[in-house]
Amino acid sequence: MSDKHLAAGSPCPPLEPGVLRCYSMRYCPFAQRARLVLAAKQVRFDIVNINLRQKPDWFLAKNPLGKVPALEAGGETIYESTIVCDYLDDRFPEPALYPNDPWEKARDRVYVELWAKVYGPMYKIYSAKGDQQTMAEAFESFLSGLDIFETELSRRGTTYFGGVRPAMLDYMIWPHSERFAMLTMFAGEGYEIPRDRYPNMLSWIGKMKEDPAVRKSYFTPEEHLKFIKGMINGNPDYDGEE
Amino acid sequence: MSDKHLAAGSPCPPLEPGVLRCYSMRYCPFAQRARLVLAAKQVRFDIVNINLRQKPDWFLAKNPLGKVPALEAGGETIYESTIVCDYLDDRFPEPALYPNDPWEKARDRVYVELWAKVYGPMYKIYSAKGDQQTMAEAFESFLSGLDIFETELSRRGTTYFGGVRPAMLDYMIWPHSERFAMLTMFAGEGYEIPRDRYPNMLSWIGKMKEDPAVRKSYFTPEEHLKFIKGMINGNPDYDGEE
Repeated sequence: MSDKHLAAGSPCPPLEPGVLRCYSMRYCPFAQRARLVLAAKQVRFDIVNINLRQKPDWFLAKNPLGKVPALEAGGETIYESTIVCDYLDDRFPEPALYPNDPWEKARDRVYVELWAKVYGPMYKIYSAKGDQQTMAEAFESFLSGLDIFETELSRRGTTYFGGVRPAMLDYMIWPHSERFAMLTMFAGEGYEIPRDRYPNMLSWIGKMKEDPAVRKSYFTPEEHLKFIKGMINGNPDYDGEE
Repeated sequence: MSDKHLAAGSPCPPLEPGVLRCYSMRYCPFAQRARLVLAAKQVRFDIVNINLRQKPDWFLAKNPLGKVPALEAGGETIYESTIVCDYLDDRFPEPALYPNDPWEKARDRVYVELWAKVYGPMYKIYSAKGDQQTMAEAFESFLSGLDIFETELSRRGTTYFGGVRPAMLDYMIWPHSERFAMLTMFAGEGYEIPRDRYPNMLSWIGKMKEDPAVRKSYFTPEEHLKFIKGMINGNPDYDGEE
């Protein structure tokens, strides 16, 4: 178990036999997906945080793509957030996070892919170096992406995409959604999500914040802002200590 | 059913009730993945080929990412090759294309992701505009990626990644593998896959060519070369008529 993010030169903490290990980074939204599903399934796991700018060689040997999340068990590793989360759903069936019907399951997985239309533009806002036009255009794209989810949640007519409780699609799109409230702090007024255009998604965000799995990995907008500013300045504060 | 690739302005062919429709492009390796799984499962389906440079509006409305393969049933559409193929495996269980064990299944899905280390450099060879150094470096990366699969197939000690017959991982990596023989035709001598370094993968290619599903979607290296050259010149011959 490591709270501190391990960099090149740090030894790999020994594995506890029979315990699943999750390689993570505190502020990585994709790693958060795995931690949400682990929490929702109440799986016992060990966490090892990785410094993504100075990755230890042993981490790259376990995971040639070098990304988090990754899960390790019995000397083997799996990675890519959706593969990791789908594995957890297969291995720990309760609570089931996908619809039983294969088509409905595939549709939920398609919406996870479509989520790139929301977070892709969000990253463009961060990386615009303050260029107002680039940021404004990226925000428009972001809202267009979010329209897809507003429409779908309205069509489903349920509190969560999963129905009466959060399911895989909810957890997959939550980490970036948790960061929406940081947008106005980062980019200023005009970067708020309009309440009249997204009534379902804004109500969904409110409900998701109360979910026990969400509460376990939650960071405030101020904490996310601090990390993103560090990232942009080339000096991310992984351990949140500074 | 359309053999000809439909472009903007063409009407969408009417759906036959109860028949799964696959949107495809003849030479797209990702669409070929879906056609391989459909063939392996002996699923009856309708195919509609899409001109990917001039996509019909109705196709974009069904699939906002605009990519093939996509499957349509009952007015809804799913897309992304791995989502489509996983759906087919869930919906049509025979023959099962994944290991039963969730971890082994996740490992196979990870190898599908790792395949980008093979086809990514392959595309770099195509797009190098004949620059010899870029091509040579891309070919080295390509071989390094292929090492991962040679090692894994050797570790498994089986004819196919799936064991005694092809399974999902075999079908997911086949389409680009079918194009390997085109590399020397495209780039010249020195772009052959060395037999001593890849004995398992080369034997796998030979066996895969005999698979009935593979035979259904097979194109010769000459046909692939013709298409790739058209692509590079900005004039892909989707219908293979010229």
